[in-house]
Amino acid sequence: MIIVKVGGSAGIDYDAVCADIAALHKAGQQLILVHGGSGETNRVAEALGHPPKFVTSPSGYTSRFTDRQTLEIFEMVYCGKMNKGIVERLQRLGVNAVGLSGLDGRIFEGKHKDSVRAVENGKTKVLRGDHTGTVEQVNTKLLDLLLGAGYLPVLTPPAASYEGVAINVDGDRAAAALAVAFKAEALLLLSNVPGLLRHFPDERSLIDHIPADQVEDYLAFAQDRMKKKVLGAAEAVAGGVGRVVFGDARQSQPVSAALSGTGTVVS
Amino acid sequence: MIIVKVGGSAGIDYDAVCADIAALHKAGQQLILVHGGSGETNRVAEALGHPPKFVTSPSGYTSRFTDRQTLEIFEMVYCGKMNKGIVERLQRLGVNAVGLSGLDGRIFEGKHKDSVRAVENGKTKVLRGDHTGTVEQVNTKLLDLLLGAGYLPVLTPPAASYEGVAINVDGDRAAAALAVAFKAEALLLLSNVPGLLRHFPDERSLIDHIPADQVEDYLAFAQDRMKKKVLGAAEAVAGGVGRVVFGDARQSQPVSAALSGTGTVVS
Repeated sequence: MIIVKVGGSAGIDYDAVCADIAALHKAGQQLILVHGGSGETNRVAEALGHPPKFVTSPSGYTSRFTDRQTLEIFEMVYCGKMNKGIVERLQRLGVNAVGLSGLDGRIFEGKHKDSVRAVENGKTKVLRGDHTGTVEQVNTKLLDLLLGAGYLPVLTPPAASYEGVAINVDGDRAAAALAVAFKAEALLLLSNVPGLLRHFPDERSLIDHIPADQVEDYLAFAQDRMKKKVLGAAEAVAGGVGRVVFGDARQSQPVSAALSGTGTVVS
Repeated sequence: MIIVKVGGSAGIDYDAVCADIAALHKAGQQLILVHGGSGETNRVAEALGHPPKFVTSPSGYTSRFTDRQTLEIFEMVYCGKMNKGIVERLQRLGVNAVGLSGLDGRIFEGKHKDSVRAVENGKTKVLRGDHTGTVEQVNTKLLDLLLGAGYLPVLTPPAASYEGVAINVDGDRAAAALAVAFKAEALLLLSNVPGLLRHFPDERSLIDHIPADQVEDYLAFAQDRMKKKVLGAAEAVAGGVGRVVFGDARQSQPVSAALSGTGTVVS
């Protein structure tokens, strides 16, 4: 089993990702595709007059503050436009894809965090009305059913809280939890950079290998959204996933390239 | 098997629909929920600066002209906000719901109609770039798999063309095709009116029964969106569905009420 996570940032070539996934699927490779939609969510939120709000935690992690209206915009983009756009691409390529969120069949479950601590102008505040959380449990039953029948699952946040409330969760860490649950041989985290860079944004400073037992030491090199990828990689390898690759989804055959070790390999 | 279709117009009480569905599901009733999202799609399309365009065919049926951008807005609302909102409500009620579009697993398939004949100012024009069609085939395999494992499927347009392209299809007629495919004992078409009215919009003029072999004669009483419900009912009863009920989704227990014959019963 291979878990492929493709981000939602500018420059990502979804046609290339889907063509590569379709070829691997037809060759008999079992895989699950997880995707994001952050960039498009920001655009739609702006257009709808409810601009995105990002908060930075005291420990330096940035996340989207997800009030109820933001959650609905998030679902429109992630579960609607992005998910069905990817399913359509795969169907056009002859792959019988099934698009699902973490709410469906409670695939992704976690605790609902209603409040978040955020640093603003040097001060730590508590913001309430947040719909976020972290995937703590992956219910594989529905996915096993689909995979056994030959379908290709296409997954996206949100997740379900233990009470069934929709919660925004980080897609990279959700993909890591999924990879652990399936004891995947590889987790590929594809985005719009070549991998983890020693001197961001200098793409020539690519770190090509990280020993599995030293992942957290490399957090220091990670900027913004890359931090959660490094955290997800640490969680995945600690959970028994063979290897994690940070790969580039702006090129042709991005999945095969990452599988063959192009990017940053954590193993 | 009961197929429940709930519309997307103003006044519909989705909490009441979901509570009733949850109670029936827990009592062992096998059912599939199909939903729309037309009203909210219009609002979002206006807000995004791409207002909805409706066209009237020479035979008098009104439908949404669905260019590519409209299709994406349609998917955002139907597959994102509406579908996941309903799945979340059901999950909160302890029902393990799975939300899918007709693209997923190619549940709904039909021919892609790229052009549509429309009457404007008394003249018939041909408009191109449309992404619409009619459900001609229901692939029940994925639904059988889910139902067999105890999940409650929540379905919505779009459908897949035979080439895998997303196409906007009428939800009432899609639900009718689904009811025929499952040889359902009942198809409930719930919206924001009490049923078919002899003198629209006078709600006291409810037609309480239509003989199955005379459904098309009643098309004359149907206004706007009700026309496709009558057409769907005709297709359903012709295809062997026990009965079709046009019911009111603005009240408590709207599903049970329709099941017990409140509304317009076609049988």
